[in-house]
Amino acid sequence: MNDTPRVSAAVLIIGNEILSGRTQDTNLAHLAKTLNGYGIQVREARVVPDVESEIVAAINALRVRYDYLFTTGGIGPTHDDITPDCVAKAFGVELEIHPQIAELIQRRPAPPEVMASRMRMARVPRGGGLIDNPLGPPGFCIGNVYVMAGIPRVMQQMIASLDGKLKRGVVLRSRSVTAFVAESQIAKGLGAVQDRFARVDIGSYPFQRQERYGTTLVMRGSDEAELDAALAEVSALIRSLGAEPEDIQAG
Amino acid sequence: MNDTPRVSAAVLIIGNEILSGRTQDTNLAHLAKTLNGYGIQVREARVVPDVESEIVAAINALRVRYDYLFTTGGIGPTHDDITPDCVAKAFGVELEIHPQIAELIQRRPAPPEVMASRMRMARVPRGGGLIDNPLGPPGFCIGNVYVMAGIPRVMQQMIASLDGKLKRGVVLRSRSVTAFVAESQIAKGLGAVQDRFARVDIGSYPFQRQERYGTTLVMRGSDEAELDAALAEVSALIRSLGAEPEDIQAG
Repeated sequence: MNDTPRVSAAVLIIGNEILSGRTQDTNLAHLAKTLNGYGIQVREARVVPDVESEIVAAINALRVRYDYLFTTGGIGPTHDDITPDCVAKAFGVELEIHPQIAELIQRRPAPPEVMASRMRMARVPRGGGLIDNPLGPPGFCIGNVYVMAGIPRVMQQMIASLDGKLKRGVVLRSRSVTAFVAESQIAKGLGAVQDRFARVDIGSYPFQRQERYGTTLVMRGSDEAELDAALAEVSALIRSLGAEPEDIQAG
Repeated sequence: MNDTPRVSAAVLIIGNEILSGRTQDTNLAHLAKTLNGYGIQVREARVVPDVESEIVAAINALRVRYDYLFTTGGIGPTHDDITPDCVAKAFGVELEIHPQIAELIQRRPAPPEVMASRMRMARVPRGGGLIDNPLGPPGFCIGNVYVMAGIPRVMQQMIASLDGKLKRGVVLRSRSVTAFVAESQIAKGLGAVQDRFARVDIGSYPFQRQERYGTTLVMRGSDEAELDAALAEVSALIRSLGAEPEDIQAG
């Protein structure tokens, strides 16, 4: 048994370029894996355009529903970077120039116009804290909302800097096994295994490889012994269908 | 001027494997590009787990807000494939065995248990239509909601089969140009260009390549002449900063 609570999060991906298909998002998958390592599970994600009303509404819908909200995108120096404005509006507070970011930005000299644009990145909602970024200006947090860059390399540094600084719940572990059987062959038996393991999530992911149909079965849960027991039952099920359990992995 | 209306869509990605980071979603980007070609713009996307209440709530929130809702995932034969049940619940109708899908499935003989699992894929909400799938059982639609497979190869066939069958609005065109200047250098001038072109969306996407900082500027809109005019102004702006407009593309 594991009495550690579950800690939940939502991810809000902000940016027209994701919704137009121009840019392939990779931040969600990276955040999901990294946060699970911190004992936080991503339970929902949304992608919204660079439109203030949409961003504000999504922030307010998600921050009350989950323990944490992590946002990516819209914190640069250009006109389409409106995430700080939206977060401030969602919380009903003013944006202020954060002296620590301002000092960092002003260290590198620039003509007044360029400096004015860069100083947009020093704006933080009143009461907000900073998220470290070795590659440039910090992100920020306010309440349970963590506001990060959209550029994957930068976002990855920011989320790495939060290791150990967030509320920690259970880490979900996984077992996976592949069988060269069609999903419909294993479906009934798999449903029965799922019924016996209420605290394990069993997912079935079919694939076709070199003309052969197969299914990868993934078990996720917080109790290693339960996962091993579920894996043993799924493996026995695969053998009962005349196939071999292959590529068994624990994560 | 272009009086063709805008037609909007949301994408709902259903599946624990996307939220755990195990699977990298690529369906959103494919759908966004394909649908824009059909004259439909994706305005929002959500990712939800394989939980009935979450899926039903998302379907009902999104189908009333946009002209179309496209879902991916959860239409296979196993216990975690609950999307048809959720769509039926969202519309308050029963699931029925669709005779056309049933006939297709029954063409390939199988033991009763396996056939029973496969027949799960013949369930369609009452009043629903079919989405062609040359690779297996069809998807389905009901009202403005289109329900497709999660496997990219299958989803791509399904969305391709809808070409010409959906309400057609404007197709957004784009121009893009790259400049080796920092975003903060171009920010002020870019904001002024954006102010002059209210019907063009201008996005700025910074990058670092071989130690050089650059920015790709993307203009999107429905009027080709306006896009060309905006591109000319942005190119002039880049030259005024002592850089060259590079890699100009029209899409």
